[in-house]
Amino acid sequence: MDFEHSPRAKEYIEKVRAFMETHVEEGEKEYFRQLAESSAKGERWCVPPVIEELKARAREAGLWNMFMPNPDFGPGLSNADYAPIAELTGRSHIGPEVFNCAAPDTGNMEVLEKYGSPEQQEKWLKPLLAGEIRSAFLMTEPDVASSDATNIETEISPDGDHYIINGRKWWSSGAGDPRCSIYIVMGKTDKSAERHLQQSQILVPADTPGVSVKRHLPVFGYDDAPHGHMEVELKDVRVPKENIILGEGRGFEIAQGRLGPGRIHHCMRTIGAAERALELMVKRLGTREAFGKRIIQHSIWEQRIAEARVDIEMTRLLCLKAAWMMDTVGNKVARGEIAMIKVAAPRMALKVIDDAIQAFGGAGVSDDFPLANMYAMQRTLRLADGPDEVHCRSIARLEMKKYMNH
Amino acid sequence: MDFEHSPRAKEYIEKVRAFMETHVEEGEKEYFRQLAESSAKGERWCVPPVIEELKARAREAGLWNMFMPNPDFGPGLSNADYAPIAELTGRSHIGPEVFNCAAPDTGNMEVLEKYGSPEQQEKWLKPLLAGEIRSAFLMTEPDVASSDATNIETEISPDGDHYIINGRKWWSSGAGDPRCSIYIVMGKTDKSAERHLQQSQILVPADTPGVSVKRHLPVFGYDDAPHGHMEVELKDVRVPKENIILGEGRGFEIAQGRLGPGRIHHCMRTIGAAERALELMVKRLGTREAFGKRIIQHSIWEQRIAEARVDIEMTRLLCLKAAWMMDTVGNKVARGEIAMIKVAAPRMALKVIDDAIQAFGGAGVSDDFPLANMYAMQRTLRLADGPDEVHCRSIARLEMKKYMNH
Amino acid sequence: MDFEHSPRAKEYIEKVRAFMETHVEEGEKEYFRQLAESSAKGERWCVPPVIEELKARAREAGLWNMFMPNPDFGPGLSNADYAPIAELTGRSHIGPEVFNCAAPDTGNMEVLEKYGSPEQQEKWLKPLLAGEIRSAFLMTEPDVASSDATNIETEISPDGDHYIINGRKWWSSGAGDPRCSIYIVMGKTDKSAERHLQQSQILVPADTPGVSVKRHLPVFGYDDAPHGHMEVELKDVRVPKENIILGEGRGFEIAQGRLGPGRIHHCMRTIGAAERALELMVKRLGTREAFGKRIIQHSIWEQRIAEARVDIEMTRLLCLKAAWMMDTVGNKVARGEIAMIKVAAPRMALKVIDDAIQAFGGAGVSDDFPLANMYAMQRTLRLADGPDEVHCRSIARLEMKKYMNH
Amino acid sequence: MDFEHSPRAKEYIEKVRAFMETHVEEGEKEYFRQLAESSAKGERWCVPPVIEELKARAREAGLWNMFMPNPDFGPGLSNADYAPIAELTGRSHIGPEVFNCAAPDTGNMEVLEKYGSPEQQEKWLKPLLAGEIRSAFLMTEPDVASSDATNIETEISPDGDHYIINGRKWWSSGAGDPRCSIYIVMGKTDKSAERHLQQSQILVPADTPGVSVKRHLPVFGYDDAPHGHMEVELKDVRVPKENIILGEGRGFEIAQGRLGPGRIHHCMRTIGAAERALELMVKRLGTREAFGKRIIQHSIWEQRIAEARVDIEMTRLLCLKAAWMMDTVGNKVARGEIAMIKVAAPRMALKVIDDAIQAFGGAGVSDDFPLANMYAMQRTLRLADGPDEVHCRSIARLEMKKYMNH
Repeated sequence: MDFEHSPRAKEYIEKVRAFMETHVEEGEKEYFRQLAESSAKGERWCVPPVIEELKARAREAGLWNMFMPNPDFGPGLSNADYAPIAELTGRSHIGPEVFNCAAPDTGNMEVLEKYGSPEQQEKWLKPLLAGEIRSAFLMTEPDVASSDATNIETEISPDGDHYIINGRKWWSSGAGDPRCSIYIVMGKTDKSAERHLQQSQILVPADTPGVSVKRHLPVFGYDDAPHGHMEVELKDVRVPKENIILGEGRGFEIAQGRLGPGRIHHCMRTIGAAERALELMVKRLGTREAFGKRIIQHSIWEQRIAEARVDIEMTRLLCLKAAWMMDTVGNKVARGEIAMIKVAAPRMALKVIDDAIQAFGGAGVSDDFPLANMYAMQRTLRLADGPDEVHCRSIARLEMKKYMNH
Repeated sequence: MDFEHSPRAKEYIEKVRAFMETHVEEGEKEYFRQLAESSAKGERWCVPPVIEELKARAREAGLWNMFMPNPDFGPGLSNADYAPIAELTGRSHIGPEVFNCAAPDTGNMEVLEKYGSPEQQEKWLKPLLAGEIRSAFLMTEPDVASSDATNIETEISPDGDHYIINGRKWWSSGAGDPRCSIYIVMGKTDKSAERHLQQSQILVPADTPGVSVKRHLPVFGYDDAPHGHMEVELKDVRVPKENIILGEGRGFEIAQGRLGPGRIHHCMRTIGAAERALELMVKRLGTREAFGKRIIQHSIWEQRIAEARVDIEMTRLLCLKAAWMMDTVGNKVARGEIAMIKVAAPRMALKVIDDAIQAFGGAGVSDDFPLANMYAMQRTLRLADGPDEVHCRSIARLEMKKYMNH
Repeated sequence: MDFEHSPRAKEYIEKVRAFMETHVEEGEKEYFRQLAESSAKGERWCVPPVIEELKARAREAGLWNMFMPNPDFGPGLSNADYAPIAELTGRSHIGPEVFNCAAPDTGNMEVLEKYGSPEQQEKWLKPLLAGEIRSAFLMTEPDVASSDATNIETEISPDGDHYIINGRKWWSSGAGDPRCSIYIVMGKTDKSAERHLQQSQILVPADTPGVSVKRHLPVFGYDDAPHGHMEVELKDVRVPKENIILGEGRGFEIAQGRLGPGRIHHCMRTIGAAERALELMVKRLGTREAFGKRIIQHSIWEQRIAEARVDIEMTRLLCLKAAWMMDTVGNKVARGEIAMIKVAAPRMALKVIDDAIQAFGGAGVSDDFPLANMYAMQRTLRLADGPDEVHCRSIARLEMKKYMNH
Repeated sequence: MDFEHSPRAKEYIEKVRAFMETHVEEGEKEYFRQLAESSAKGERWCVPPVIEELKARAREAGLWNMFMPNPDFGPGLSNADYAPIAELTGRSHIGPEVFNCAAPDTGNMEVLEKYGSPEQQEKWLKPLLAGEIRSAFLMTEPDVASSDATNIETEISPDGDHYIINGRKWWSSGAGDPRCSIYIVMGKTDKSAERHLQQSQILVPADTPGVSVKRHLPVFGYDDAPHGHMEVELKDVRVPKENIILGEGRGFEIAQGRLGPGRIHHCMRTIGAAERALELMVKRLGTREAFGKRIIQHSIWEQRIAEARVDIEMTRLLCLKAAWMMDTVGNKVARGEIAMIKVAAPRMALKVIDDAIQAFGGAGVSDDFPLANMYAMQRTLRLADGPDEVHCRSIARLEMKKYMNH
């Protein structure tokens, strides 16, 4: 039992912290300034130039692809070592992208690294790792309860040496970004197969004929431009057979492999967001007065701050443990812990951020502080990658297995 | 003890319900369509024409100024009779305005009706009652904890037969609307007076030199255009002495009188929003399937629906009781009940709406359904007109008085 | 809409309040003193004499059988008029019995009044109304999930002009009392009938051969003597056919009729318990100091007191509304409201009492104050007469019916 | 970062687990049987013989004084290594005592080991370590808010070469046990000194004249015999000066040193209780049916089981981290983490146990299962060793220090 970070983790923590303070904090303000400027010119969906400058600087500093355990493509940190780093990046809206550690690219890169053919890796993994392009993952559909993944309706039909894809996806995050060049699409290649063998994952370049990004979906009132959460129509979209990943009917298997790291990366960043919210709350309450004393001295706030601190600490530890288990016993054995942190992290963060909003009064719901935006983004994480209810179901079933013979 | 609505209330409930179904439901869609159109043309802060059409129709139908107990200016409904009607209007984003029952105009009209001089009434109350202009209430300030109203810093200094006003206000809701013509401004006329006699309320026409609307404040990403929640600078703003309401040092007294009805009207509408969220949730869960049955049949949802129903019913009853007390024993005696419903209603609605969002999955946080917007708006009501903590303080003190001799 | 109690209710409220203050408060202390004395002599399950003195006095004062709407047997108060009176009695552990308004006798008397034959009424209802005997209701069984009432296994088999009853019941409240003379037993007369026609209710005198009270079940550590919650074995218990109530297969029907008033009476008393807990909490916090001021002035307690007040008020209103509906539209139409208050009241009370315990520190969990005992008793009400989950299921289904066509 | 227990911890975990299964599970039943027997004979406050047999066996097996880091007196486990062991013992009501690891002896032994003079150690520590006697800690007082420890009123006045002690203490846990021979008493030696130097701790043999155990305090109806939570009067109690621990005015210092390990040991056991409650809940729900399927398959229970699992895991990790910090950086630096786990552990356990009670229905509140008793005992831990509010205050102040310069 040792709660100390490894020397390697500590080294990266210090470097990332310094980089965040020196470059990202200011860069974030510039980012929103540039975004507002281009918005004012009617160009909402374009990339603020500062982000590419920051990326170049981070890459140069060796703070690049830190999410990727494979040492061929980055520092090769373990999940446990990456956790505190991802947390730091999660304090800033642009943090993850600066270090090429942003969703959904990280998940897509992992899929390609793990399951992609050499040709697929050359063509798509390489530029993703270089931060030259971005990507999206097209799974959820508007017309069915996607919480039950077997409901998915998109069809991937063989047609000679091609597949023809038809379907409608939404919450395709990142598909609003002009740099987004490649989609991984989940759909059914064989509706008559056993339930978990019906689906496949296939690579679809964003510019393939038949692909149309129909609209963006706001999250609360945020469009999250230029990233965006898009609704995408796939109409008779034709891609070569070699675009299939791993083979027909392997979609579920890949999804399982993909979702472990993807989910826990979200959770790491979520903890960073909560930590930042707590810091903002304490500072605010410590500098304003009401009814004759600093607000932080009112015991209702002592209670809320204490609960926030307790809940953040506990969630962080669970996240670290899940990451450590992924490193030591693998994602499959760690699936209970991954499901647990998936449920726990946004639940915790939403409570902390909501209290912080209350502490800020009107300023809390505005965009003068990042709290309302954080809240909106965290709220989606009780739905994305499987709603709480589905993860709770899995956790309960593991529990049942311990004690029952069925 | 009689829980039945009066015949008069029932008559208006039926009329308003019918009007909502026939005109407002469709009108709301048209409203957002028109707003999107003008937005697309770069004109975000202009009023969708459909709203004036609906207002004309409502006025014609006698469904106008129903909030106003004074029968000279509307049907003269009691608060208890108005409660279920306000609830119905609260189901729609535009409902309250259609019937000229929208905040902050209602509160401002009540102030003018109750405390305004005949000249003030002629000049400002009359066009407000006619729905020809709109208004704003400028109280909260960015630089101090406005939860403690004695912190307010805006200065109203006598200068001959004028006052000169200097200060900065924010969360001036409605000040974004091009029709917003008059502000009621709270500020200090005498900083040396006893704490509750320092402040005054004064009428400031929106076009007075020195008034600048600096920017809008988004609420969870929503700009709430064209209404808007604005930051307003008052720089050497000069208004005639007769613009003061009731007299110098009476600001607190007016605020107390204003806030009772204002707060409870919000609560009535909040209950309508929660009721709509529950309806949407039940319908959605009843039509989608996951894991082999309709989602509504999963017992976790039975539990949440039941809790929503219980909590809505209880909150509605408290709201009705508070309204009935205002009618029968007056706002002052009812202040405990008003504070209670002020705390209870948004707390309840946020829980119901949040569960509804979860029921809708991704659709819940988007704008395809009104839930995310409702959530954002309701969240502000734990802050507006005094944060929860301040109302809880008042409730606790009343409780203490019952049992203690100090 | 009128929230004022009827003149008749007010009259009884004043009388009962005065009686409680003058006789019951002191009587309760005497009751526990006498109970402790007989306990010390090894006689735990005997009735403290003071209770019969108080009963005589209450009967003389006309404060008797107030629960019973039928004016032949008491003042004939409506449910809505009885609610505030039951609430007052619920402030004291012995209150309900003093006025012959205690469970489970009230429910049993209602069954006999409504469904009993003249002979059954003469033999059992009369002495119950006179407070000469007490009774128990034997429904729940240890070996099955009784939340699903169709699981019940006790058999009532015809044998000539008798029935023979075999089964095991528990949580037979009141069966510990030496005055408890008659049981109403629920069991199956026909296992092959349609699910809701299998069961019957039958009268079994406590001294019938084959009846054995096996043991008492503590609630947390309270034995609730001499009342008691007993496990009762029924082994070849033989009763004449005329003991069946209403007829074979009518058990469910009777249960439905019985449970409405029974449940809401519990809720009324629960609100009284919560109100007393709040009063105790406020008084305690107002008289002790920590960290330089009275504890009640710490804002965490302002918050908790305010929430307690809000939650009590709302629950009381829901209870009154449910009672009023029972009076005006009947138990069947009011079943949704009855289910709601059944879920809401103990949930609320447990929260208030738990906060009060925290306010009292160690004294709160002891028997120096009634809080821990109240908590234990209220906790059973989330289980008794159907667990929360089953009531939530019913509420959700009513909700679904509103919007769905099935 | 390493979440694996040390080989030494694993060895003890296996041994303790085996001992619990082989000896303690059955022994616990025997314990309650013997206790009931002597109760039936009117001898409630005597020690069931089985406990001494189990103690002898545990000592023989080397599973003795495992709480004590000093290797002279036991295996010398670190706090982090002891945590999982204490958790296992916490699954059983008698577990901790069997291994001589029960409160309050552990805390008292630590005080004597750390601060006692050689004579004090010889006389009291030795027999405590040998499990020959038991002890109590007399701090809390009935007449003041002991949450603020400066309120304590007991006087320790010098009188020649003796002290004379006067005061009234309660919640003196363990003072009901006939084996309880020694008290550590907290009181004021100098009321004029600086607030944190007024108090001292002094050894008072239980049989000193002037000491009277007045009564036991039940916890939710449980007397917790023969241990007991007692009210103790100290009237002109005379002890020699050498009985003072560490010296006059050092009482606070000792309390700080004592409370760290004492609190975390409670938390470790609390986690074991919660884990057992979850196991009981899952097994029960998996074997009973309602509405056509096993209750565990109803999604409301999936949700609750999942939340219990998540919350137990997180709390356990926080407990381990706090223990590890005590081992590595000391109790003083770890005080934030100790306060956090002190707040988090009972809060979590109460929720899990309450859900388990609901799962068991009536059986849950009875003594057929240990849940109600567990609930009662855990509820005291939100009060004992400082109420939640005081610990939250400390946590909030640490947080504030991070960000503020005052």
